[in-house]
Amino acid sequence: MRIAIVVYDGMTALDAVGPYDILNRLPDTEVSTVGVGAGPKRAEGGLGVVAAQDLSAVTAADVVLVPGGGKLGAVMRSERLHEWLRDRHATAAWTASVCTGALVLGAAGLLDGRRVTTHWRAREHLARFGATFVDERVVVDGSLVTGGGVTAGIDLALTLARLLHGDDIARAVQLSAHYDPQPPFPPVHPDAAAEETLVIVRDRLGPR
Amino acid sequence: MRIAIVVYDGMTALDAVGPYDILNRLPDTEVSTVGVGAGPKRAEGGLGVVAAQDLSAVTAADVVLVPGGGKLGAVMRSERLHEWLRDRHATAAWTASVCTGALVLGAAGLLDGRRVTTHWRAREHLARFGATFVDERVVVDGSLVTGGGVTAGIDLALTLARLLHGDDIARAVQLSAHYDPQPPFPPVHPDAAAEETLVIVRDRLGPR
Repeated sequence: MRIAIVVYDGMTALDAVGPYDILNRLPDTEVSTVGVGAGPKRAEGGLGVVAAQDLSAVTAADVVLVPGGGKLGAVMRSERLHEWLRDRHATAAWTASVCTGALVLGAAGLLDGRRVTTHWRAREHLARFGATFVDERVVVDGSLVTGGGVTAGIDLALTLARLLHGDDIARAVQLSAHYDPQPPFPPVHPDAAAEETLVIVRDRLGPR
Repeated sequence: MRIAIVVYDGMTALDAVGPYDILNRLPDTEVSTVGVGAGPKRAEGGLGVVAAQDLSAVTAADVVLVPGGGKLGAVMRSERLHEWLRDRHATAAWTASVCTGALVLGAAGLLDGRRVTTHWRAREHLARFGATFVDERVVVDGSLVTGGGVTAGIDLALTLARLLHGDDIARAVQLSAHYDPQPPFPPVHPDAAAEETLVIVRDRLGPR
């Protein structure tokens, strides 16, 4: 089983590394990173994450996953990346995105007519790719699996673990990753969040 | 505010990157990576994560965080790292670990007499550093903040966000990171896990 995670300048590192470390626990599975050009990419905040291979070296994968980022920039315009995503999607068992990685799949033409989720701040952008936003943490539509923002990558990866290997293995992966989340605040749906919280998110927080 | 996250060969990347991406959202905060030698480190599974600076370049930090890994190897024996951790701990507002990163703090002599948590599979190792295991997701004891395994780094980082900036900012960071976790299986305490699940964790799963 081969899983390829796309990494690029400006991505949110956790979008990629959450799934990486969950999927890396699966038996008989090789998880690797791929980029437009091999070598270090500069994620949000400046963190260097290495693309182990250039796109050209990955000619088949069972799962392809695209993380998101706050400023997608070049990956929304890279015809080379989009063609590679279309080619891999054609034969992959699952094509996945986390957060605004869905918009990259959209730019590649893979979301037309599909049910999709993304980071709550990016919901309104899905329509221009012909996708219908679904307000769920993880959405499976055919061979397309999309997750909400950032931390949703962990739930998405466990969903993939279940789809690939069944409940017993996925349950063990969840335990192995000690995934018994305890957010300090009761999670609030973005539509129900206090205006002052939304203002802080918009005006005071990174990523920079 | 300066936050330094130690990265090293063999670490679990998510232990470092979960906190990185949460803390990177804080206002007026610089989060960077530091290692025994600058440059790419090879996390479990082979993922390359770059140490932006050598230890010698980070002579003060408000927060120091050490991720864990399945095979700690060199970081348990690095006198240079241990001395650096002791020096930073002496003036840092918070010294933190995720998962088996606690054992690295222990090797540096920072856990004696402290209340500490770690990955459930590493619980029994804390006693040899003079620490008392506390069966909680995140434990704050003085200026020491320790988290459970792997995914606990997100809860730990949000706890740090709250300690550093208060509830309003931390709540906004949680929303910004879309942290409304929905594990596919109801979390089970390791002591209550089915024997067959524990056998899978021990014998069939990575990280490799």
